[in-house]
Amino acid sequence: MRRLDRAAILAVGSELLTPSRLDTNSLRITEQLNLIGVGVVFKSVIGDDREELGRAVRAALDRVDVIVCSGGLGPTDDDVTREVVAEVLGRPLAEDERIAARIRARFETRGLRMPDINRRQAMVPAGAIVLENTKGTAPGLWLEEGDRVIVLLPGPPRELEAMLAPLVEGELKARASGFAIVRRTVRVAGRTESHTEEAVRPLYGRWSQATVPVAATILASLGQIELHLSARAASREQAEAAVELASREVEDALGLDAFSRDGRTLEEVVGSMLLERGLRIAVAESCTGGLLTSRLTDVPGSSRYVQAGVVAYANEEKTAILGVPPTLIEAHGAVSEPVAVAMAEGIRTRTGTDIGIGVTGIAGPGGGTPQKPVGTVVVAAALPRQTRSRLFRFVGDRQMVKFQAAQAALDLVRRMLLS
Amino acid sequence: MRRLDRAAILAVGSELLTPSRLDTNSLRITEQLNLIGVGVVFKSVIGDDREELGRAVRAALDRVDVIVCSGGLGPTDDDVTREVVAEVLGRPLAEDERIAARIRARFETRGLRMPDINRRQAMVPAGAIVLENTKGTAPGLWLEEGDRVIVLLPGPPRELEAMLAPLVEGELKARASGFAIVRRTVRVAGRTESHTEEAVRPLYGRWSQATVPVAATILASLGQIELHLSARAASREQAEAAVELASREVEDALGLDAFSRDGRTLEEVVGSMLLERGLRIAVAESCTGGLLTSRLTDVPGSSRYVQAGVVAYANEEKTAILGVPPTLIEAHGAVSEPVAVAMAEGIRTRTGTDIGIGVTGIAGPGGGTPQKPVGTVVVAAALPRQTRSRLFRFVGDRQMVKFQAAQAALDLVRRMLLS
Repeated sequence: MRRLDRAAILAVGSELLTPSRLDTNSLRITEQLNLIGVGVVFKSVIGDDREELGRAVRAALDRVDVIVCSGGLGPTDDDVTREVVAEVLGRPLAEDERIAARIRARFETRGLRMPDINRRQAMVPAGAIVLENTKGTAPGLWLEEGDRVIVLLPGPPRELEAMLAPLVEGELKARASGFAIVRRTVRVAGRTESHTEEAVRPLYGRWSQATVPVAATILASLGQIELHLSARAASREQAEAAVELASREVEDALGLDAFSRDGRTLEEVVGSMLLERGLRIAVAESCTGGLLTSRLTDVPGSSRYVQAGVVAYANEEKTAILGVPPTLIEAHGAVSEPVAVAMAEGIRTRTGTDIGIGVTGIAGPGGGTPQKPVGTVVVAAALPRQTRSRLFRFVGDRQMVKFQAAQAALDLVRRMLLS
Repeated sequence: MRRLDRAAILAVGSELLTPSRLDTNSLRITEQLNLIGVGVVFKSVIGDDREELGRAVRAALDRVDVIVCSGGLGPTDDDVTREVVAEVLGRPLAEDERIAARIRARFETRGLRMPDINRRQAMVPAGAIVLENTKGTAPGLWLEEGDRVIVLLPGPPRELEAMLAPLVEGELKARASGFAIVRRTVRVAGRTESHTEEAVRPLYGRWSQATVPVAATILASLGQIELHLSARAASREQAEAAVELASREVEDALGLDAFSRDGRTLEEVVGSMLLERGLRIAVAESCTGGLLTSRLTDVPGSSRYVQAGVVAYANEEKTAILGVPPTLIEAHGAVSEPVAVAMAEGIRTRTGTDIGIGVTGIAGPGGGTPQKPVGTVVVAAALPRQTRSRLFRFVGDRQMVKFQAAQAALDLVRRMLLS
């Protein structure tokens, strides 16, 4: 039997052909396929169009070993993936009563009646294996055509992602070539893209000459720099070992600026540090408007270390809830190091926690002055034995400033806990 | 001569087939093509691979009137777009001395000698028109093959974007059909995808038969349903009128559940309502962990109506900051309608605002019980003359529950303000 080696990814949905939507599922699919050494040869986006989708599936069948389709499995008229693939393969469709029952039960647990149109999602092409969807109504489908495999997955990312890993580790891995492509992301805070490049570039030469070569790419988005490393080797262990070594070398080159070598976010890293040290945290934020507390509480289990957050958006709340003296705000302005410090210390005292954070700034687009332009942000952290603050000038729109300000506050806490 | 009507976009570059890079150029290309009535039929990403690119170009020539390729025009060995397209069209390549001179001059102004490899960028297929690149070394190329047009553009977004608009407004518009495609998004809250479809489907038949037909797609992501409408007509005004009418019909069919016909988010809609009515709002949130306040403050100008937010993550903070009686929490549990109401009324009184919101629930993955499983959320809103609360059971992971809970709270306020 032919080993799976080359893949094509087809994303189905007319909305993905508009100026406002991108297919992001293919990134996760690529990541998973790479883990078992399957490379993506091409990817295509097709609208909800029977003829175009049929041509794309036929073309892909000629060129690759495995086709992964995402989207078009919903209950509505414009969801055509199931029917088109069955037609291309010449397989009749029949209703699968177990799927219909499962979908009906899903609606019933929410106290709803299953609409008739959802029965379409229970239609299965002959010879297909049904892949259970634990997060939604549309099941996935696995089809084989000669040596080739076609996998149909639902479009909503959360549903697709939950189905992808078991599939790749199970059926697909068993039929893959045994090679592995392993990638590793090093995340960086407090350093620009070019300064990261300067520090890391001397390593590239040796990496490319190594027995298992390592490739590196630097990516910058929002307030975050990432270094992506990848290696392909005869075994996953060899590839893992190569990126592990390379990521340690990056860490040596970047020092404290490299905050994660395993894809963890800054809020996850800070959360683990708080948990290990048995510390609780409370947040007083202004310009970030709740984003900082929201990011901290995105981490499962964060209730063990997040005590409270206060969004003191109006100045009088900085005084009323956080106890910041009005005279301090008058003397220095709401966006100032003394006020950020008073916010951090105020929330720490108010809630009796170990650590208090204060963030104040101008997210824009309005509110800037020549002295304090849009993007001016002050973060402060109050720990049991020390309080520190830092002033930043961020570039970007409102949401970018919010993200970078939250990032800077988390990073300040991280560095203080490490020092 | 055939008018240009259907387009395909090909993005070339092996980095676009890794798990960390997306082709974003196609969004800008789609936007520009739509303005002159050219619709994108499919888009594909191909690596730096002569054979695969050749196949993709041949397939696209069979299916569309205009092909826009981005990337692969650089000076290095892996930049193959120019050669592959020339080969598919059977055109010999020859060096264009004016391009070579321009590239040489570009290097010289920076005090550099042009590397020999850059001469590749001066190679032009017979019959091609050269499109000047003011931001980089690689010129674009315009080729015609029978009735069809092939445009090759450089991959760096800054270079591509600068070349795109003049091209679309110039050569492409002159050969386009004169039609225009206009899009409109209706956003929906408080209704599932299938129940939205059931209500809207009766309209589809008439829309597809209308003088200016309107196409509709329903999209569900997180806790939000969107209906995307598009119309293609001989003039932009006609297309606008068609989607405007269709979006009003959707609004009639969905009633209050349709909260925006112009792409505005729920936080923007609620923000405008507060601003119009001169009302201020404060938020007390637990399971949403700051997300609700963060979404409200994502809207520029929200400082005019957002007073404060409190994330009472620990139960004692519900009492300390919001004044929720501990006996109420003991009697009903932290996730209950009485506690959500006390949170909403507490923050309203505490901050002296017009509206208070309370959100409490179990975001998961831990903390669920048989009576109150993960996803159980209660939202409450206290307005000057009435307080209301609602219980939900959301499905999904932690971040999805947070988003849906925030959405439900905003939607409750919106409905109360409208009633």
